[in-house]
Amino acid sequence: MARTQPIRMGMIGGGEGAFIGAVHRHAAGLDGDYKLVCGAFSRDAKNNSNTADALNIDSQRTYSDWQLMLDAEAKLPPTERMEVVVIVTPNHLHVPISLAAIKAGFHVFCEKPAGVDLGEVLDLQDALLSSDRLYGLAHTYLGYPMVWQARHMIEQGMLGSIRKVFVEYPQGWLSANEESHNKQAEWRTDPALAGGSGCMGDIGTHAFGLVEFVLNDNVSALCGELHTHVEGRRLDDDGAALIKMESGATGVLIASQVCAGEENALKIRVYGDKGGLEWQQMEPNSVVYRPLGAPYQVFRAGLGQPGLCNEAIDRCRTPGGHPEGYLEAMANLYKNFAVAIRNGDSGKAKGVPGIHSGVRGLAFISAMLASSDSDMKWETISNVGLQN
Amino acid sequence: MARTQPIRMGMIGGGEGAFIGAVHRHAAGLDGDYKLVCGAFSRDAKNNSNTADALNIDSQRTYSDWQLMLDAEAKLPPTERMEVVVIVTPNHLHVPISLAAIKAGFHVFCEKPAGVDLGEVLDLQDALLSSDRLYGLAHTYLGYPMVWQARHMIEQGMLGSIRKVFVEYPQGWLSANEESHNKQAEWRTDPALAGGSGCMGDIGTHAFGLVEFVLNDNVSALCGELHTHVEGRRLDDDGAALIKMESGATGVLIASQVCAGEENALKIRVYGDKGGLEWQQMEPNSVVYRPLGAPYQVFRAGLGQPGLCNEAIDRCRTPGGHPEGYLEAMANLYKNFAVAIRNGDSGKAKGVPGIHSGVRGLAFISAMLASSDSDMKWETISNVGLQN
Amino acid sequence: MARTQPIRMGMIGGGEGAFIGAVHRHAAGLDGDYKLVCGAFSRDAKNNSNTADALNIDSQRTYSDWQLMLDAEAKLPPTERMEVVVIVTPNHLHVPISLAAIKAGFHVFCEKPAGVDLGEVLDLQDALLSSDRLYGLAHTYLGYPMVWQARHMIEQGMLGSIRKVFVEYPQGWLSANEESHNKQAEWRTDPALAGGSGCMGDIGTHAFGLVEFVLNDNVSALCGELHTHVEGRRLDDDGAALIKMESGATGVLIASQVCAGEENALKIRVYGDKGGLEWQQMEPNSVVYRPLGAPYQVFRAGLGQPGLCNEAIDRCRTPGGHPEGYLEAMANLYKNFAVAIRNGDSGKAKGVPGIHSGVRGLAFISAMLASSDSDMKWETISNVGLQN
Amino acid sequence: MARTQPIRMGMIGGGEGAFIGAVHRHAAGLDGDYKLVCGAFSRDAKNNSNTADALNIDSQRTYSDWQLMLDAEAKLPPTERMEVVVIVTPNHLHVPISLAAIKAGFHVFCEKPAGVDLGEVLDLQDALLSSDRLYGLAHTYLGYPMVWQARHMIEQGMLGSIRKVFVEYPQGWLSANEESHNKQAEWRTDPALAGGSGCMGDIGTHAFGLVEFVLNDNVSALCGELHTHVEGRRLDDDGAALIKMESGATGVLIASQVCAGEENALKIRVYGDKGGLEWQQMEPNSVVYRPLGAPYQVFRAGLGQPGLCNEAIDRCRTPGGHPEGYLEAMANLYKNFAVAIRNGDSGKAKGVPGIHSGVRGLAFISAMLASSDSDMKWETISNVGLQN
Repeated sequence: MARTQPIRMGMIGGGEGAFIGAVHRHAAGLDGDYKLVCGAFSRDAKNNSNTADALNIDSQRTYSDWQLMLDAEAKLPPTERMEVVVIVTPNHLHVPISLAAIKAGFHVFCEKPAGVDLGEVLDLQDALLSSDRLYGLAHTYLGYPMVWQARHMIEQGMLGSIRKVFVEYPQGWLSANEESHNKQAEWRTDPALAGGSGCMGDIGTHAFGLVEFVLNDNVSALCGELHTHVEGRRLDDDGAALIKMESGATGVLIASQVCAGEENALKIRVYGDKGGLEWQQMEPNSVVYRPLGAPYQVFRAGLGQPGLCNEAIDRCRTPGGHPEGYLEAMANLYKNFAVAIRNGDSGKAKGVPGIHSGVRGLAFISAMLASSDSDMKWETISNVGLQN
Repeated sequence: MARTQPIRMGMIGGGEGAFIGAVHRHAAGLDGDYKLVCGAFSRDAKNNSNTADALNIDSQRTYSDWQLMLDAEAKLPPTERMEVVVIVTPNHLHVPISLAAIKAGFHVFCEKPAGVDLGEVLDLQDALLSSDRLYGLAHTYLGYPMVWQARHMIEQGMLGSIRKVFVEYPQGWLSANEESHNKQAEWRTDPALAGGSGCMGDIGTHAFGLVEFVLNDNVSALCGELHTHVEGRRLDDDGAALIKMESGATGVLIASQVCAGEENALKIRVYGDKGGLEWQQMEPNSVVYRPLGAPYQVFRAGLGQPGLCNEAIDRCRTPGGHPEGYLEAMANLYKNFAVAIRNGDSGKAKGVPGIHSGVRGLAFISAMLASSDSDMKWETISNVGLQN
Repeated sequence: MARTQPIRMGMIGGGEGAFIGAVHRHAAGLDGDYKLVCGAFSRDAKNNSNTADALNIDSQRTYSDWQLMLDAEAKLPPTERMEVVVIVTPNHLHVPISLAAIKAGFHVFCEKPAGVDLGEVLDLQDALLSSDRLYGLAHTYLGYPMVWQARHMIEQGMLGSIRKVFVEYPQGWLSANEESHNKQAEWRTDPALAGGSGCMGDIGTHAFGLVEFVLNDNVSALCGELHTHVEGRRLDDDGAALIKMESGATGVLIASQVCAGEENALKIRVYGDKGGLEWQQMEPNSVVYRPLGAPYQVFRAGLGQPGLCNEAIDRCRTPGGHPEGYLEAMANLYKNFAVAIRNGDSGKAKGVPGIHSGVRGLAFISAMLASSDSDMKWETISNVGLQN
Repeated sequence: MARTQPIRMGMIGGGEGAFIGAVHRHAAGLDGDYKLVCGAFSRDAKNNSNTADALNIDSQRTYSDWQLMLDAEAKLPPTERMEVVVIVTPNHLHVPISLAAIKAGFHVFCEKPAGVDLGEVLDLQDALLSSDRLYGLAHTYLGYPMVWQARHMIEQGMLGSIRKVFVEYPQGWLSANEESHNKQAEWRTDPALAGGSGCMGDIGTHAFGLVEFVLNDNVSALCGELHTHVEGRRLDDDGAALIKMESGATGVLIASQVCAGEENALKIRVYGDKGGLEWQQMEPNSVVYRPLGAPYQVFRAGLGQPGLCNEAIDRCRTPGGHPEGYLEAMANLYKNFAVAIRNGDSGKAKGVPGIHSGVRGLAFISAMLASSDSDMKWETISNVGLQN
């Protein structure tokens, strides 16, 4: 058996004061598959070098600029240079960096949304179709074992024919004017950095992606509205939509960042003619299954737990009752991305959301903006994106 | 102190095999304020007399027909004849009986919805305005102490200015073709008996009424859709709407009877700029309060429990931790209706939903039907009904 | 079919300011089986007459004294006099009144504990054995449908051979010196009125009775200790014991009234070699069932709910999701007591705890006092009481 | 700012098929503070080399034996050799390896319990007192932020004077004869490898340690019993005890591995004269706080969450609502251990359980064995171990 070398990883963004960069580093570190070798963490030189020092990055591989990093790393010997670049910048840079990185020969693991505009994301999709590089999108919630279990139970017909889906994602952290003093809030409410939607780009895409993944079905159309509640805020912070699935099921999608007191309460419920199920992110290790005509059951995550599908088991590290959480969910994406890199796969990494999710997410954002502008016209999105 | 005589009550509907009639009798019996003295329980003579016998009703005051009952009772001496009539028939008889009963001098306590058609309910409203008789509508959920507590906390400004309201009422009992063998399901899905809407008439009105009560605000407009999922079913069994409140808040209303495995999961969440709250019918003795910037709190029903408003305390019979439920909620309506009768109040009984709730409920049903027919046009309903 | 006449009921105790008397009246009223016809509600004349007036009791049948009441009622014609007497006085009067009532020919429904002393309760048991009168004991929690469901599931072998039982009953209402100002607390902490134990007599007996009922097995021995936490308090307010069952299972019993912030959190968990189950009074409509090697299941109370035994169904009035609670649990005792009265049963009323529960409860209290005094000696109680 | 080098870590035990070794590696990897450089993972040569390869360990630093490893590593240059050794073998080797490692100059991070016998653990304590090496003990649950929050709230007097503590640790995984086919179960039920107690050594020590930590108080005496339920099992699999704290509080400790269907349900409840609190491991991000006379509150883990103490905040990596779990709890021990190593601290690592916890754990096990053998004699343990 040959020694398993860690994959060399670089990071763009994620300097001191950022949130999601550290999350990616924790997640990549959890299973020991990656080694951070270089970074362009911040355009602020002091922040950049402090971050690099804290992360034990050689100053020669600490870059002031992402273009410099891609260029310099590409010139290093193949056994030294980074293999995958993690993009944790504000949204507007996601596509430009992704395109350049792929062109320079690197795999890309990118925070969501894939970009700020459907057009640019479709361009990225084109570029990926003609490349052998892997592209992963951090739809973190799709790394949870019990999200896979929910999808599996629906695929197995345990709910029968699907009729209804309700997804909701209430947060409360933007209830007040956070953008005046909180860096995270600042860029997420700035159209130049975040894109055309605030709440839908930031969390609506998670809710949308969860629906399409769990049902293994596309949203065909939606009719919704967006709201902005805090004075001076430049993007929506709240919205809801009625949705239709290609299979004929219908439902409701809610995403809001002004639900005062809510933390991060993403939840999905699905109902078919034979039963229903429910999963919620804040108690992620359970799927409640409600078969018609029998007591309801709770399937639980964990090694050795009864009734789990292989995809769920593969995403657990501990026996039942030892809760795993958000970092483990993202680590599952990294773990599967590492498998694909080591396998030499091209295109999509199995078990990791890819550009298709990115395209669908932007189609969702566009449709929400259009429907809200038109006072509740149904917007069709079934035709956007390749088949998954 | 004079002896408190029980109020003489008659019942129309509620024979063997019916559900809600027994609920009313339990609720009316709980506090000892009423004595059932007469009834027209069923058009089936055998059922009618069996029901009467089981309830210890004199055969002379067991009537084969509701008109006969109103006529005969009106002719009895004032100290003997029934004082209030409880209407627990299918919906299409609610208004005709109510009108006749009021005319004959009886107070009316009626199951919801108030009728099958907005027009007839407005007529009933007119009749009540020129009568001194009391009219109560069994919006049972408005009898729960913690629903009053939620309303109180909003009135006190504990949530600040209201931005969002989400109400949902998923049930699963009509997931299959129940109407083929279940009497309850049969009439509730028959347009001639239930009215123009199935799910919205049966449970959507509860969700709608809960929103207007808890927020002490009217829904100004809604945009929604209705669905029918079971083959051969003649009325909607599911629907959802985006809603706007007169105050400017917005939200979502969901009501469905095909959420397989769900029991009776009515739930409301409200968010303002200072906090949020949540109440759910299946754990009715708690209000979760989420103040912005402090740990969330749980207010609990019960005599001696901290933080409760008077309206909540008045609706509790036991100390905290001795759960009260659905029958006690309806008993609270009966208790308050008894107070009003004994006080000689006219028009509205304090603490009991009245004709205004009935009118609003029908306006809601009409708007849901119209919006769904028009493919998501906003329907305005702020102008329907007198002010509460 | 003959008309079902309500059973004529009298009450001793339960005047204004008492708690449990009103609970009994609500419970007896819920199903319409009883009519309160007489009472000796309080030794305070004003309280007595006010209570009687509020309850519409004829002043001629409002008695200043319980002996007077028993004598006077016994002299009334059989179709007029009370049939059953409800005893809701402090504990020290339970046995004297019960004995006198039985002797005078009345059925007895008594608050628990059955008495203050094992000896007097054994005397009462003897008296009942030679009488045809019915005796019911208000172990209210044994009226809950899901307590019967739990017992049924164990009887059916769904847990296999029972190994462990944990029962706990934490309350917090005596955390401070309540007896200085709260009537309820006053007599419950007075040895002359409450008996030799405070907490064990008041709530420990409930926990103990629940174990014996759900397991359908006797506690054979216990080893425990009692504590008193509030200065000046004259009886224990807290205690715990290790217990052994006759079947060989072992467990823990906790009862405390100084668990600050707890309401009335009675809970039982049972484990066998094939599975476990859990029921808690504050969410009384669920039994959690944990079969070994399968996802856990939740059985839910309600008409039409899957998997329920007949004894559970018979104790439900509403469909699933319409919560029933504490008053309904006690009403179930009253309903079954009414059935037994109407059937002319003698001795034990089916489905209602009787003198056997009373004897066992006092044996438990005695053993707790003895074990605590002896610094943790095992006290055997398997030999106390007739077989159930 | 100087670059932060990872700490060089070696591991003894943790080969393929073991559970806890991987947990330690995940935890050590999460924050990037450690680099695994050597190991003696298994006495099975194939397992050892496979594990090493999978972990990218140089074959020259993959040792067939722990003594060899300590010797060889000690001879490497200071900048190369391992700095800390992680011990994840069966219990009987914990002390021998710890003693040798300290003597050889390595810091030790050891799975719990510290050893199999109080005597050997006291010897280890002596050795540590005369060494400058750090010793950490993996009482993982003491790494949870909300366990620190609970301790803090008690220290701040938010509960007043403590009266009661209930701790319980039900598991179900040893309900059947697991040791016949499950390696984990095999050694944990073998007295030669696990020590004199099965359940108390494995999980009772966690429950005990949690009580002493959260209350910041010692158990002074206990009176308990042990049971073995599965035929042929050689050690206890279940037990319970009444406990007394030095402060005067009393309580109950339950630990069992035959609670069929339970996962890993460690839970603690504490009550004082001003309030109570509750924490449970399976929902580790909440502390329920029940102040006397006010609605109960829920304190929630997460960056930016209200009301948290510094010790809790320091143990969070994500904002509220992004659940962290068991691996993060252990990672918090590793993170604090890294801080102490880098600081050059000697003796105890701040925020990490040390030899004192080890000594107390063994004193607990000894007392449980002695009390159970003596049929419920109180065993005093307040005098065992140095002050924390």
